[in-house]
Amino acid sequence: MYTQHQKRQKTYGGRQTPVTDSYEFFPGVTRVEYRPGASAEDSLCFRHYNPSERVHGRTMEEWFRPAVSYWHAFSYQGLDRYGMPAFIRPWDEAPNSLEACKRRVRAAFEFFSKLGVRYWTVFDRDLTPEGYTLEESFQQLDEVIDLVQELQQRTGIKPLWFGCNLFSHPRYANGAATNPDAHVAAYAAAQCKKAFDIAMKLGAENFLLWGAREGYHNPMVADLPREMRNYAKFLKIVADYKDKHGFRGNLLIRPGPHRESRFYNSEHRYESEDCDTFGRYDYDAMSTLCLLKHHGLERQFKLHVYPGRDHLFASA
Amino acid sequence: MYTQHQKRQKTYGGRQTPVTDSYEFFPGVTRVEYRPGASAEDSLCFRHYNPSERVHGRTMEEWFRPAVSYWHAFSYQGLDRYGMPAFIRPWDEAPNSLEACKRRVRAAFEFFSKLGVRYWTVFDRDLTPEGYTLEESFQQLDEVIDLVQELQQRTGIKPLWFGCNLFSHPRYANGAATNPDAHVAAYAAAQCKKAFDIAMKLGAENFLLWGAREGYHNPMVADLPREMRNYAKFLKIVADYKDKHGFRGNLLIRPGPHRESRFYNSEHRYESEDCDTFGRYDYDAMSTLCLLKHHGLERQFKLHVYPGRDHLFASA
Amino acid sequence: MYTQHQKRQKTYGGRQTPVTDSYEFFPGVTRVEYRPGASAEDSLCFRHYNPSERVHGRTMEEWFRPAVSYWHAFSYQGLDRYGMPAFIRPWDEAPNSLEACKRRVRAAFEFFSKLGVRYWTVFDRDLTPEGYTLEESFQQLDEVIDLVQELQQRTGIKPLWFGCNLFSHPRYANGAATNPDAHVAAYAAAQCKKAFDIAMKLGAENFLLWGAREGYHNPMVADLPREMRNYAKFLKIVADYKDKHGFRGNLLIRPGPHRESRFYNSEHRYESEDCDTFGRYDYDAMSTLCLLKHHGLERQFKLHVYPGRDHLFASA
Amino acid sequence: MYTQHQKRQKTYGGRQTPVTDSYEFFPGVTRVEYRPGASAEDSLCFRHYNPSERVHGRTMEEWFRPAVSYWHAFSYQGLDRYGMPAFIRPWDEAPNSLEACKRRVRAAFEFFSKLGVRYWTVFDRDLTPEGYTLEESFQQLDEVIDLVQELQQRTGIKPLWFGCNLFSHPRYANGAATNPDAHVAAYAAAQCKKAFDIAMKLGAENFLLWGAREGYHNPMVADLPREMRNYAKFLKIVADYKDKHGFRGNLLIRPGPHRESRFYNSEHRYESEDCDTFGRYDYDAMSTLCLLKHHGLERQFKLHVYPGRDHLFASA
Repeated sequence: MYTQHQKRQKTYGGRQTPVTDSYEFFPGVTRVEYRPGASAEDSLCFRHYNPSERVHGRTMEEWFRPAVSYWHAFSYQGLDRYGMPAFIRPWDEAPNSLEACKRRVRAAFEFFSKLGVRYWTVFDRDLTPEGYTLEESFQQLDEVIDLVQELQQRTGIKPLWFGCNLFSHPRYANGAATNPDAHVAAYAAAQCKKAFDIAMKLGAENFLLWGAREGYHNPMVADLPREMRNYAKFLKIVADYKDKHGFRGNLLIRPGPHRESRFYNSEHRYESEDCDTFGRYDYDAMSTLCLLKHHGLERQFKLHVYPGRDHLFASA
Repeated sequence: MYTQHQKRQKTYGGRQTPVTDSYEFFPGVTRVEYRPGASAEDSLCFRHYNPSERVHGRTMEEWFRPAVSYWHAFSYQGLDRYGMPAFIRPWDEAPNSLEACKRRVRAAFEFFSKLGVRYWTVFDRDLTPEGYTLEESFQQLDEVIDLVQELQQRTGIKPLWFGCNLFSHPRYANGAATNPDAHVAAYAAAQCKKAFDIAMKLGAENFLLWGAREGYHNPMVADLPREMRNYAKFLKIVADYKDKHGFRGNLLIRPGPHRESRFYNSEHRYESEDCDTFGRYDYDAMSTLCLLKHHGLERQFKLHVYPGRDHLFASA
Repeated sequence: MYTQHQKRQKTYGGRQTPVTDSYEFFPGVTRVEYRPGASAEDSLCFRHYNPSERVHGRTMEEWFRPAVSYWHAFSYQGLDRYGMPAFIRPWDEAPNSLEACKRRVRAAFEFFSKLGVRYWTVFDRDLTPEGYTLEESFQQLDEVIDLVQELQQRTGIKPLWFGCNLFSHPRYANGAATNPDAHVAAYAAAQCKKAFDIAMKLGAENFLLWGAREGYHNPMVADLPREMRNYAKFLKIVADYKDKHGFRGNLLIRPGPHRESRFYNSEHRYESEDCDTFGRYDYDAMSTLCLLKHHGLERQFKLHVYPGRDHLFASA
Repeated sequence: MYTQHQKRQKTYGGRQTPVTDSYEFFPGVTRVEYRPGASAEDSLCFRHYNPSERVHGRTMEEWFRPAVSYWHAFSYQGLDRYGMPAFIRPWDEAPNSLEACKRRVRAAFEFFSKLGVRYWTVFDRDLTPEGYTLEESFQQLDEVIDLVQELQQRTGIKPLWFGCNLFSHPRYANGAATNPDAHVAAYAAAQCKKAFDIAMKLGAENFLLWGAREGYHNPMVADLPREMRNYAKFLKIVADYKDKHGFRGNLLIRPGPHRESRFYNSEHRYESEDCDTFGRYDYDAMSTLCLLKHHGLERQFKLHVYPGRDHLFASA
């Protein structure tokens, strides 16, 4: 006797979907249209959002620039510290195989097209897993990027931002740019250069950095000003590289609350959150601006703040 | 060029340790002794804890009953929602193979013995992974329990508590005893019965339940009193089973803060924690006592509250 | 040159309003009516609330029983730990004189009547200040209650609840029923008896207790079970008195978050809130129910929980 | 029958202490000395703090510069939003009379001298109450400052900082420098000039500003950049005035958490704290530095951060 979960698992689990150009991941779902008269029962339609409707001289689409987050919608498998991966999706068997990575990309672009958005947002490591060496990581990424490029050309969809994930691999547990191990900082720089090149290649409107693991576990055992200088130096290099290569998009930096920075001690979040001294240097909008101003970077970077997250940044 | 992390990975990663009874996981580490005169430089010794020293008519060991948490020290691999497994341990290659599970158990008992504790604490699923079916899960567990029993007999070490993990598998994403899918509740009951039988078999001093996923996402879409009745009914069954089989230990229930209950939406923790309506019914000591009293279970269960966690329970 | 604040102060500050039965505190304001067609510009009217409109067999007024809080609307003068009284009201010059107390009551009933509510809520000490002795406090209260009774009869307005303020006077800084000084507990009992008698006299629908100062500053220096027994004993006496005198309303107990309990160290709220050990025994709905059940009082008391405060109670 | 509180009140309450130069507020208490051998029972002595002991080339006194906060120790009467003034002190009968203000100053200097500190910290309005006009406020202040100056000369004690209280009077409920009423901003400037002149007169080591009421209730109804410009403009004026008059001390600005800024709606703290949008512009160290840098004031002001408050500032 199976639980619903296992039933679903059975349905998908076995199949190695043979994905062709014509394979449909969302059969029966057609383009999501604007239907102002739709009732509460109607689904898969926009009742209020009309992309081409002009408001104060611009279309809604131009104002909102809706984008789908690849990680939230396709890469993230639904695990947390207490739970195994909880999402079951037809494109996700053997999730770390290159085949699966490509299946995921195809599913995503079908989704984007049917939803009618022109933008997506994605981190490098959401597209392909970390390889055993940097080279291997790059090769795998390049192979999937070729497919992404082809699908972008076919659909006209572009990254609203392309980001560099310097926080998921254990290597970055103690930070990337501020990591006490110089090898790690160098590794981060190399990964970042590659991500930036891809961002340009894909015509991303913005390039995103999120120092989710930068920071200190305890101010007593860290040289905070020095770490901030190192972080700023890293940002400076990115800014110089951008100018040198004439990237016309913006560099974005995403502030994040202190607690987000915890790595593999998230249970302590529950025990010691209140008195925890762990912190980041760019934990909210003002602190990030302060960091940028102090190192003369306020013209090079813009803030990436989620709508409705400003309170969090002020209070987290 | 490798980062330190990769160097360590290389050292261990490749090797399939051939584990024999005589294999030592912590070579060069001998029994940790009480050495009151030890200096700050000396490590691997107790400067204050003297197990056999009598205080008010009992030995320190009898007062404290120190125990090692198997999950924290051996099973947990250091991942969080933003990060890959970060711990690298010789017993952890291919962590889900039965061989690895046994290696881990051997390493743990070597650790317990050298540390000189008489107790450990463990959840069923920390010992072996979830199988594809309930039967498979049981078979794997039985095989490892045989080894555990052998090592317990050899060392005289026992579980301070043996717990039932009804929160890690996606099946329990919406609760175990309070899951809207009756199949899941039945599944949880079967797993719990098995775990209880093992607790008795291993001579555990206590049997622990932790409803980490019980609760509601939004009080508007749940029938709270009914869910609490279902939860209490589950607890009642466990208590009856205990009496029927004459388990002489205690039944423990561990309260947990609201936020702990979040499953695969932990990012929302950051966006909506403040206004999140997600909650548990046993989120602190008083609410758990209230739940137990209301259903006449206060004599059957004792609370399991971590030292120093009471504030958390009051404030989380 | 005066600031606006001082201008207003000048306007009111000097005048000793000669209050007669016919004196109007809100001249030009007539009865607030239901006007569904009112535009956003229209004020002093109800656009949605229609007291006499029947919904599922009851009028809106019967469902909602809207009431005005006397303290929030009339007694509280707008001070906080960092600020002087900030409210300037014509009925508030010499706020502690009996004349001012009566002016305030007249203003309130004019307000209730024009608003069209049938209920108000009030604590004993919101009506008259603390006297130097218990007797003096009672005499002043009686004099104002006579006026209240007269105005209630004239308007048909009643207390939705009448409460006993056992938290404002420094005497109660360390609790009323749980105060280590038996004299204070006795004093609280006497004040409570008087308040209860008035509640019956005024035909209050409920009698409210709010243990805003009960609790401990640090669990290390308090005998918590004993304090809870003392608190329960106090509640028991109130319940017995109610039965003896045949009060037909309900006894209400209002849970309150930990932080609310702080007395004259509220700045520490900012420094030590996170790690503060100060706490109450009835800090949320579940803990209050637990307290009541444990002492067999769950049939005698109902909870008074503000709408929308349940989250607070769970999280405060 | 009196409670302890009333007994104490009786003892002090009636007496109008005739204060002479020789009057002693702390009879029987002599100079608090350094007594390293003191036992746990001994009180009124320093067991670890030895003012004249040299550590790394400085005396402890030079390192720590201990100071007594006048407001916490003498002016504040122990009220909070839920409670009447709770402190009973011989120098506090008729606390708003000039006589009481002088008694308080004499008591404070006796206390400072016996404690052996060389510094105190004080806000202008802690010394004398707000007068009905600015002129009156100044006259009262001048009269008390004459006594302060005399006592400072006699004891050699100086202000570690002298501050300007722009947050207690209702006039400042919506901010001082950022108040929408220009009269209030002008009033604040005049009060600040006076306070600064006194700081110089008393030889204060620092002059403190704390924008406890600056900020917004809701970002939707405020022009934040403009308010920040107004705040910065105010700070600029203070800095210019300092340079012009050659004050050799530092200008300090004290960041404060969001919640501190609430004025007479502190109960809402409990209902809406989580989702409250009220905020300050200088709510922690980084945001204050950002504000200063953005307006080119980082060389004019130093931060005043309480030890141990940095976490608060980051998290409040």
